[in-house]
Amino acid sequence: MSFVRPDGRGFDQIRNTKITPNINPYAEGSALIEVGGTKVICTASVEDRVPLFLRNKGLGWVTAEYAMLPRATSTRTQRETQRPAGRTQEIQRLIGRSLRAVVDTKLLGERQIYLDCDVIQADGGTRCASITGAYVALALACRKLLKQAVIKTSPILSSVAAVSVGVVGGRVVLDLSYAEDSEADVDMNVVCTAAGKFIELQGTAEREPFSREQMDEMLIAADKGMEQLFAIQNSALEG
Amino acid sequence: MSFVRPDGRGFDQIRNTKITPNINPYAEGSALIEVGGTKVICTASVEDRVPLFLRNKGLGWVTAEYAMLPRATSTRTQRETQRPAGRTQEIQRLIGRSLRAVVDTKLLGERQIYLDCDVIQADGGTRCASITGAYVALALACRKLLKQAVIKTSPILSSVAAVSVGVVGGRVVLDLSYAEDSEADVDMNVVCTAAGKFIELQGTAEREPFSREQMDEMLIAADKGMEQLFAIQNSALEG
Amino acid sequence: MSFVRPDGRGFDQIRNTKITPNINPYAEGSALIEVGGTKVICTASVEDRVPLFLRNKGLGWVTAEYAMLPRATSTRTQRETQRPAGRTQEIQRLIGRSLRAVVDTKLLGERQIYLDCDVIQADGGTRCASITGAYVALALACRKLLKQAVIKTSPILSSVAAVSVGVVGGRVVLDLSYAEDSEADVDMNVVCTAAGKFIELQGTAEREPFSREQMDEMLIAADKGMEQLFAIQNSALEG
Amino acid sequence: MSFVRPDGRGFDQIRNTKITPNINPYAEGSALIEVGGTKVICTASVEDRVPLFLRNKGLGWVTAEYAMLPRATSTRTQRETQRPAGRTQEIQRLIGRSLRAVVDTKLLGERQIYLDCDVIQADGGTRCASITGAYVALALACRKLLKQAVIKTSPILSSVAAVSVGVVGGRVVLDLSYAEDSEADVDMNVVCTAAGKFIELQGTAEREPFSREQMDEMLIAADKGMEQLFAIQNSALEG
Amino acid sequence: MSFVRPDGRGFDQIRNTKITPNINPYAEGSALIEVGGTKVICTASVEDRVPLFLRNKGLGWVTAEYAMLPRATSTRTQRETQRPAGRTQEIQRLIGRSLRAVVDTKLLGERQIYLDCDVIQADGGTRCASITGAYVALALACRKLLKQAVIKTSPILSSVAAVSVGVVGGRVVLDLSYAEDSEADVDMNVVCTAAGKFIELQGTAEREPFSREQMDEMLIAADKGMEQLFAIQNSALEG
Amino acid sequence: MSFVRPDGRGFDQIRNTKITPNINPYAEGSALIEVGGTKVICTASVEDRVPLFLRNKGLGWVTAEYAMLPRATSTRTQRETQRPAGRTQEIQRLIGRSLRAVVDTKLLGERQIYLDCDVIQADGGTRCASITGAYVALALACRKLLKQAVIKTSPILSSVAAVSVGVVGGRVVLDLSYAEDSEADVDMNVVCTAAGKFIELQGTAEREPFSREQMDEMLIAADKGMEQLFAIQNSALEG
Repeated sequence: MSFVRPDGRGFDQIRNTKITPNINPYAEGSALIEVGGTKVICTASVEDRVPLFLRNKGLGWVTAEYAMLPRATSTRTQRETQRPAGRTQEIQRLIGRSLRAVVDTKLLGERQIYLDCDVIQADGGTRCASITGAYVALALACRKLLKQAVIKTSPILSSVAAVSVGVVGGRVVLDLSYAEDSEADVDMNVVCTAAGKFIELQGTAEREPFSREQMDEMLIAADKGMEQLFAIQNSALEG
Repeated sequence: MSFVRPDGRGFDQIRNTKITPNINPYAEGSALIEVGGTKVICTASVEDRVPLFLRNKGLGWVTAEYAMLPRATSTRTQRETQRPAGRTQEIQRLIGRSLRAVVDTKLLGERQIYLDCDVIQADGGTRCASITGAYVALALACRKLLKQAVIKTSPILSSVAAVSVGVVGGRVVLDLSYAEDSEADVDMNVVCTAAGKFIELQGTAEREPFSREQMDEMLIAADKGMEQLFAIQNSALEG
Repeated sequence: MSFVRPDGRGFDQIRNTKITPNINPYAEGSALIEVGGTKVICTASVEDRVPLFLRNKGLGWVTAEYAMLPRATSTRTQRETQRPAGRTQEIQRLIGRSLRAVVDTKLLGERQIYLDCDVIQADGGTRCASITGAYVALALACRKLLKQAVIKTSPILSSVAAVSVGVVGGRVVLDLSYAEDSEADVDMNVVCTAAGKFIELQGTAEREPFSREQMDEMLIAADKGMEQLFAIQNSALEG
Repeated sequence: MSFVRPDGRGFDQIRNTKITPNINPYAEGSALIEVGGTKVICTASVEDRVPLFLRNKGLGWVTAEYAMLPRATSTRTQRETQRPAGRTQEIQRLIGRSLRAVVDTKLLGERQIYLDCDVIQADGGTRCASITGAYVALALACRKLLKQAVIKTSPILSSVAAVSVGVVGGRVVLDLSYAEDSEADVDMNVVCTAAGKFIELQGTAEREPFSREQMDEMLIAADKGMEQLFAIQNSALEG
Repeated sequence: MSFVRPDGRGFDQIRNTKITPNINPYAEGSALIEVGGTKVICTASVEDRVPLFLRNKGLGWVTAEYAMLPRATSTRTQRETQRPAGRTQEIQRLIGRSLRAVVDTKLLGERQIYLDCDVIQADGGTRCASITGAYVALALACRKLLKQAVIKTSPILSSVAAVSVGVVGGRVVLDLSYAEDSEADVDMNVVCTAAGKFIELQGTAEREPFSREQMDEMLIAADKGMEQLFAIQNSALEG
Repeated sequence: MSFVRPDGRGFDQIRNTKITPNINPYAEGSALIEVGGTKVICTASVEDRVPLFLRNKGLGWVTAEYAMLPRATSTRTQRETQRPAGRTQEIQRLIGRSLRAVVDTKLLGERQIYLDCDVIQADGGTRCASITGAYVALALACRKLLKQAVIKTSPILSSVAAVSVGVVGGRVVLDLSYAEDSEADVDMNVVCTAAGKFIELQGTAEREPFSREQMDEMLIAADKGMEQLFAIQNSALEG
């Protein structure tokens, strides 16, 4: 078939991805992640108290918040001045669960890490970029806690990254841009550990229901993207 | 392994499921769905106007709302008197997308169908029960519109049902009860068309990341449950 | 005069009324009350703590919440996702006061009973049905506390029931249905103890102010309804 | 029995009551009502549009809002910066219904009158004082509309006033002050037309259920108070 | 130039100003301030606890709330039933800061004084009238605390008053009425201590930016108004 | 006196200031302004409709919104998910007024420009940096409208910039950092046009009231800062 991706990428190729660590002088950990035209500032803030339901249990907590600047999008989006909208809550719950899944809350001790993912520019895949970038911020914050001897052992069990796959124009494609996402029949977000196990898998048929075969094909493409994302995370953390 | 399900079911067996159609005298379509100890009242309400963003386009809309009675749960849950919580919004967005996926909004015409899923009793799997029951309410409402000659062709493209699968105690199990869900390592909700294609797939590692093999096994179990749910829906609609 | 009630009832006759106790497996007490086409699920939930203003005084509290499913009514009513509306608050305050009036809060001890009245179907008189049904749920919950030896003496001072009376088409009528209520000149809700004393009395001239004579006539009709409601409550509690 | 009222009044005597008309230079009608230590500013504001549900029907509307200054009470009460509380809504709904009951909305024409009742000082009976004072503001506003030939016939069908009665220390008393109200077994608000017919009647047993005999006695006392209130209204309107 | 002020005042003349102390029987301190057609009820309420951020530091706090009755203005203004609007918050923050600036919170001790400024009638300059009147309420409340020996030394460091100045029709004018304010090119609020030092200065060019010369001229006019306001405050406090 | 500024600056010296234009690919105009450690992303979004109160008058509107990322500050600040706080509203109203003052809304035509100022990093002076940066975004947006021939004449009447001055340790200082601001006796924000006229002037005595002499000295310092800011704006717009 003659379908070509808007930016000329191969079907199983991720966009140009870059992670800049330590971009915020105040946060315990921080990173700017750029995935094509998508840019997210991720910060990790450590607080010495946990939510009410965890008090005096010796366990820590990891939570996430997600927001977009009004002009992160091609037309201006109104700020969510009343409680966050459904989509926002869905995304921040996903980010929170994904990062919590790789943290041993006992080793973290009775403290909470806030992961703030603020989208400066949005060109598709903001929730996946947020997870991938938030991991770097989280890892840097834990490293700092270790250095300061606040904790003795790193609570991080594995690294975690996320990528989207989908079906566009009948073809399985990896890492959809906004333009592709708007045209997609299927959109699936895959969150994995470095060992290739799944933490979250959310597939939605936006137009056409998808078959078991398409799903298998999507998971193979996702796997390919994951490998590169873990490499980019590692070099950001080593830099 | 000697793991036994609390209610003695086989690992790939769904709970006792019953759908009673037309339980509300006012709604255009309605059904009470009972899945084990879970009970959900589903109503379909037809309105002659669509949301702002669809006006004057000749297209209809299907939307869902989900709520629990305060004592649907073993301890009382507070009513959501401020905007619905994140979990609630996530669920009603899922129900809405799932049902919208099987409706041709052009054939529906410029009208909106509200699917209200009110959980009277909750024993796990309320979102899946809501989708499966809401389909019956929706189908009955469309049938009524056809009978009244408000529409000429049924806008329903396929039936849709949902079931949960998961990993509990190392075993893949189908249709988790609340007790099982609390112990699960993995919880996955699968929404399918009668033709066996996926509309939604949401898998979450609650404790342990899951492998590709486990996922394949879960999908096979889900498939088995689907078959029975479609049969129960059909007999409710024929009754 | 030739005025006939829509359902052929006598002017001083209540609708077909039925109370099914213990319809919820989790609640300490529960009942489904059906008054003609009106159906309300009433649950009593016992909590081991009281509102702030009562702490450490050795006194208990009884409070009520009231809500309608969106399609309890002939056209769909929007959920109250922002704080409850004025009408809802007025009703739940009335239910709370009525039930509190028959409870000795000292004997109840420092615990709170939540009475949730959820209207599944509304055909007039929902607030009266809620009070009459909530009493059964409350009585069952107290019975359970006695059985479990959590309390030693029943805190219930009397049973309580409620019925509406009104003036429709110039005639005093008992227990108005929705159709009658819409046409009524006067609508009065009467809440009484089993001994025939008043707990609440709320009469409103919807169209025509009413005379002292009409009021006296309405109270006689109410009295007649009360007797039957107390009998139905008793047999539900004995069953 | 030797029970004496705190201010030495007879059991069926109202407090010193004074209505000062036209106390606001901007409002179409206004009055300050003082009932003992209770002071309420009532204003009537005429707007040339009606609520949505009445548009293009040729009918007018009368609505009320009620609020207290924070230090109207002996200890400071917080402002209701989130939606009005249940008690406030109950009161403003009562005031609105009471005044609407004496207005022919057809003669008023498609306009709305807002009755704002702002309690400057609260010593019991604020809702009754609000109704009695709001009537004067309303009458003055209608007079102005007539003078300006905006309407041709006065839409006012009757005057309306309100007074509280209750049972305190076993005695039926008229027009309870705050101190009496806190001690009352029964508190009843009576709203009447000048012709002595009832518009609203709201009786609540705060401690002890009340008998039919007590109710009859209370209504006789209320009647006595009404006469004086109508006289005070009339002289305020003539002044 | 032939520009004449609507009420014939001189350009550097304040309106007729009157402060009536002790107008509320419950509040620890209170005053009604009338500045031309502007009337504000100011009350000071003393509470024995401070905001969270000050607990156990031995320091007191002074805070202010500001509101308007709906018909304080020539057309009715809606009540702020959701959180106070931006303008209201700006004003109450200004009042709070201004009064806090003349209070030694150490001498006040761990208690909070609420200054409620409720505008009964608004004809321009309500925020300045509120500050000037609130000072009298505050001073009376402190005097009461001294008399009751709750505190030993007065925490008041200086009196404080406020006045507006502006540029209207090219001329610098003192104490603008609403009509003048609507026409003003510049509007400046000046808050001073009795010693002539500035506590707040807020100047806004509503139409035309203003020069350094105009500002100097405005400050001289403000100074003239201040003198009179301090005299009026003093005689209210001596009365 | 031996007082030295934390960063060694002269008392009348502004911090290192840099404006990068066109940092957002979607917005009609945008700029990143950095003033010492303070960083603000400013975007100008043009919409083809105006607020309700301006419709069909041929006039445009300029409005501003201001927010901080949670970790813009040294400790994490909670997001304002309920309506913006008082401080935020005060700031965005100031920004809006300041920019509106230099725009001819008739020349702008019936369209609205949203100026979003999102603080990425906060080290004092964020409201002044927002105004100075927002001007650049606004100017770029107007330039684009001119280029596209949407408007014929630039609606911009003058450039505008803002700077803070204050009294710290008894000395008048220009452009306070966060550390200085926390210690300041006086904090004044000055907003000027390029012609040196005042648009806004907001001075607050945080600890000590200030004299007329101190104010004059502060205005001279502000003037010095303005000159440099206008130069930096110009070179950003020429670049």
